Amino acid sequence: MNSKNVLVECIPNFSEGRRPRVIKALHDAIIEVKGLKLLDYSSDQDHNRCVFTFMGNPRAVKKAVLVAADIAIGKIDMEKHSGAHPRIGAIDVIPIVPICNISIEECVELAKDIGKSLANKYNLPIYLYEAAATRPERVNLADIRKGNYEGLKTEIHLPERYPDFGPAEMHPTAGATVVGARNPLIAFNVNLGTSDLAIAKQIARRVRNKNGGLRYVKAMGVMLQEKKIAQVSMNLTDFTRTPIYAVMEMIKMEARRYGVSVVGSEIIGLLPQQAILDTAAYYLQLPEIEPIQILENYMLE
Amino acid sequence: MNSKNVLVECIPNFSEGRRPRVIKALHDAIIEVKGLKLLDYSSDQDHNRCVFTFMGNPRAVKKAVLVAADIAIGKIDMEKHSGAHPRIGAIDVIPIVPICNISIEECVELAKDIGKSLANKYNLPIYLYEAAATRPERVNLADIRKGNYEGLKTEIHLPERYPDFGPAEMHPTAGATVVGARNPLIAFNVNLGTSDLAIAKQIARRVRNKNGGLRYVKAMGVMLQEKKIAQVSMNLTDFTRTPIYAVMEMIKMEARRYGVSVVGSEIIGLLPQQAILDTAAYYLQLPEIEPIQILENYMLE
Repeated sequence: MNSKNVLVECIPNFSEGRRPRVIKALHDAIIEVKGLKLLDYSSDQDHNRCVFTFMGNPRAVKKAVLVAADIAIGKIDMEKHSGAHPRIGAIDVIPIVPICNISIEECVELAKDIGKSLANKYNLPIYLYEAAATRPERVNLADIRKGNYEGLKTEIHLPERYPDFGPAEMHPTAGATVVGARNPLIAFNVNLGTSDLAIAKQIARRVRNKNGGLRYVKAMGVMLQEKKIAQVSMNLTDFTRTPIYAVMEMIKMEARRYGVSVVGSEIIGLLPQQAILDTAAYYLQLPEIEPIQILENYMLE
Repeated sequence: MNSKNVLVECIPNFSEGRRPRVIKALHDAIIEVKGLKLLDYSSDQDHNRCVFTFMGNPRAVKKAVLVAADIAIGKIDMEKHSGAHPRIGAIDVIPIVPICNISIEECVELAKDIGKSLANKYNLPIYLYEAAATRPERVNLADIRKGNYEGLKTEIHLPERYPDFGPAEMHPTAGATVVGARNPLIAFNVNLGTSDLAIAKQIARRVRNKNGGLRYVKAMGVMLQEKKIAQVSMNLTDFTRTPIYAVMEMIKMEARRYGVSVVGSEIIGLLPQQAILDTAAYYLQLPEIEPIQILENYMLE
């Protein structure tokens, strides 16, 4: 891997889940982009929504968003859209996630760059959220989408609902779009050697941010009914600041209070390589394992 | 990463370290091959030898070996070769190393395939070594190279020195070639919280295969003079069977006998990602971390 190898994940959500032709057009436009890998896509008729997950260098990601936006704006009319899922526009939300050799701050810049391009090209109101938010009340997506497309249309002229870029007026068909940057989520679950759910709940309380635990941990206790095993089920929202190994060790420490051991764990879905390098380095007492030490990384595109 | 992503490392050694033009011709031919990454190359005038380290799918690796062999056979004359390093031919030795989604057995097949191609195309005697060896006395490279080019030339007609492929007669200019497969080496060193070299030596004895320790560990005790720290310095010769974490934990266990702690470690050079996934999975008590869970792997060529 050369140092230029920068990877960003992007998960744009479009307000179209019923017309296969439009979904296919979005899909085909995205996979045409060079230096980009489509990891997943799905659509839902009830939500009337489709979601693409792709990854690549920032330039490729921006290009993919813009070509897909062009199709969405041409084909999706929010005036005719209905669906169970909250939404304010044809290109409803564009989260940008740092994966490799890029900081969350740089992803904020990329989100703003994409937002400006969309605003300028289509006269589209753009809201920045999460790490890119310009005010505290816009960090959460739900707050920006309050009232949905229909509600925002009547309130967008109010100062508190002014967009960050573009006009204070909804696009006649495409509505508005939310763009932002957030860290990758790691779904990490730890199984306890007990069927006592109360213990898992107590440990979850201790380890999570909300009750005084680790800053970037959301946790709850759940019961794995089949295995009769209590589990601490977690989302790690910034593994660079609250590493996986620290969560694991804290759970073991709290479990000792109950004479309970950790019997296993699971990582659900995908995660950046760095999270694993950090974990192995900690336990092997290495200062760090550098990505350039991993042979496979030299084959990255 | 799709399941087709197979990576092999290959480190061919050529008997040319003095003519930059020939070394450059080898280099240029190798980097032309698609699906291949040249990781390193070096040459030495005293040894009169150059070494290329490259990686790619088996087809690309075979192609790179063949195009480089064509140049080596055309330009290197063993009758005129002198150098400090043991050697029997222009393409002296071709080690093949499994990195990703390929077994050592499959690398043995690749080594045989390459060996047969070289034998057939150039009438070149080929010896198989390490995991590809056809008899115990040919496992070690040094045994095959006994007597060097000059000595083998007079003995190649003896049954015990018959090549595995090709004629029992040296190629008039290119001599003979050794091809084989071996596992990747991981250079792993563990620093102890003591300046007592004797303790590092005792632990090295306990942990290494030679004295009853772990099968795929070579170890010695060394002194880091500047830091005044004793170190167990190791080569792990098959991390899939003797994993890094097992070595680490065994060293900690032995160090406790002396009331000594592990103060750090180092991995020198490159290693396959799998070695790190295995380590992280052990300490996180995960059944395994699959390569398809690592986001970056989707960008592998």
